[in-house]
Amino acid sequence: MPNTDVTLGIDIGGTNTVFGFVDKSGNCIIESAVLTKSNEPAEKLFARLQLEINNLYKKISSDYDFIGIGIGAPNANYYNGTVEYPPNLSWGYVKVLEIVRQYFDIPSAITNDANAAAIGEMKFGAAKGMKDFIVITLGTGLGSGIVANGELIYGADGFAGEIGHTIYDPDGRKCGCGRKGCLETYASASGIKRTIFELLCNSTEESEFRDISFNKINAKMISDAAMRGDKIALEAFDYTGKVLGIKLADSVAHFSPEAIILFGGLAAAGDLIFKPTQKYLEENLLNIFKGKVKLIPSALTKGNTAVLGASALIWNELDKLKKDEIQ
Amino acid sequence: MPNTDVTLGIDIGGTNTVFGFVDKSGNCIIESAVLTKSNEPAEKLFARLQLEINNLYKKISSDYDFIGIGIGAPNANYYNGTVEYPPNLSWGYVKVLEIVRQYFDIPSAITNDANAAAIGEMKFGAAKGMKDFIVITLGTGLGSGIVANGELIYGADGFAGEIGHTIYDPDGRKCGCGRKGCLETYASASGIKRTIFELLCNSTEESEFRDISFNKINAKMISDAAMRGDKIALEAFDYTGKVLGIKLADSVAHFSPEAIILFGGLAAAGDLIFKPTQKYLEENLLNIFKGKVKLIPSALTKGNTAVLGASALIWNELDKLKKDEIQ
Repeated sequence: MPNTDVTLGIDIGGTNTVFGFVDKSGNCIIESAVLTKSNEPAEKLFARLQLEINNLYKKISSDYDFIGIGIGAPNANYYNGTVEYPPNLSWGYVKVLEIVRQYFDIPSAITNDANAAAIGEMKFGAAKGMKDFIVITLGTGLGSGIVANGELIYGADGFAGEIGHTIYDPDGRKCGCGRKGCLETYASASGIKRTIFELLCNSTEESEFRDISFNKINAKMISDAAMRGDKIALEAFDYTGKVLGIKLADSVAHFSPEAIILFGGLAAAGDLIFKPTQKYLEENLLNIFKGKVKLIPSALTKGNTAVLGASALIWNELDKLKKDEIQ
Repeated sequence: MPNTDVTLGIDIGGTNTVFGFVDKSGNCIIESAVLTKSNEPAEKLFARLQLEINNLYKKISSDYDFIGIGIGAPNANYYNGTVEYPPNLSWGYVKVLEIVRQYFDIPSAITNDANAAAIGEMKFGAAKGMKDFIVITLGTGLGSGIVANGELIYGADGFAGEIGHTIYDPDGRKCGCGRKGCLETYASASGIKRTIFELLCNSTEESEFRDISFNKINAKMISDAAMRGDKIALEAFDYTGKVLGIKLADSVAHFSPEAIILFGGLAAAGDLIFKPTQKYLEENLLNIFKGKVKLIPSALTKGNTAVLGASALIWNELDKLKKDEIQ
């Protein structure tokens, strides 16, 4: 029997870099991780990674052929093959694909994690067969990957898809980007925490959060409290869904997507976040879009989602290469 | 010498339907118009149009071959070939391409006027060679046509590109769509007129508009007054550019376009609208996009812009057909 083709998906995070071999159907055959060591230059990470990748591949090389590498990383530029001044890594401007190609003589591609997630959903997940959809990643911040006409939107410079930095309120919350009122200051793990404190200020409702300091609260505690019926926590989810729904109505007016997929830590809160987001999205949609847009969870469940996304990126590139060869 | 190929561009407006034959370089060879008669059913318009089109073509048929028809119309759906409940025509739901194909056995396509304008700019105008740009039409309302990866964004249902109905202020001005605070209630010919009256209320500044009724004011009068130094008119342009700039910063966050092209009546005010829009757009852009996005006027000047846009639509389809045949 001939070997099965696999690609390597690499997800570079601030703490860990996870990588794994994934087949064409989105099954992760084997995966591993190394510490990113965010204070070291990128070259050191890739020197360590190369050894680990070769060791991992040896375990499966009798049955699998290694044919491509896809990378998801913060501030990655698909067009340039670079990572440009990532906030959580002391890398500066790094030509990542040049480094990777010194070690591996196979096709490789890089993009940011939200774009990788979008391609992952299209190839293996909730967006199979869709040509127009948006993936929203609700983590510490809010990332987005947008697909239209079956292709990821990179824009003129490779940095399209910054829905987290659309403005909800020009006089609103201070954002890490230096401006005010960005969507991600409301709709994200850190956003909902800020909302808890706004509500503790504005309301007189009792809440378990009246006894906990800002620095000790995280999104998981807020969803647990909401499950227990804490009114401030429940109201925080409602408000988060309201801001997200209002701004996603703007995104729908731009793209008219078939679906919006919620992904990442805060999306794991399930109905707590999906129900209010769906309600306010519908309320704020232009008539012609009402009832048309599905709000659904990620279906990247067969392995580490970020590894599957990064792998899907390079599978997608390999498909394009094959198509070009045939034509 | 062989004949030159031409396509017919048809622009269906509430009052007039303009049509003309356009060559592959965007030169309008000959054009004409009929009354739309908005209270008549669509079939009657196309029966009259057919005769007029054949008469017009006879005048040039010795030198030109008629190879396709492109149509721009309100509420047109590219995917379905339909016009669906246009606000200014008593048509209801009409299968326009079916009607057209009864008369003409050549390729035809339909889209809304803002999308046609975008394709026109890409083929003949200010967006030649660009793969990522947005056309904003500032007429009575605000229309938009969005191109990403070299292709027009139609979305899942054919109705993408409704930037005029993104929300500037959820508690803002009542919009014709039934909601509140849509961008087009601020940034359009009717929007700037509403702004004049907001300013006449909030300010104590003298203005020539203190002697004119709401129903008698139009956008041309406002730009004329601004040229003469009327402070209320100047402030109205500044405010219009502010709202437009803030919302276009959101559009840039979605698409990262190379350029935004302002088109239509209000764009004719030149610096009066371009300068404040550019200023507030830059101020509100996320850092990574600052200084990258050109704000430029339409360059569809060799003939009726709407006819050129409609013609460009079908030239674009014919190019795609040719590409598919070769491959």
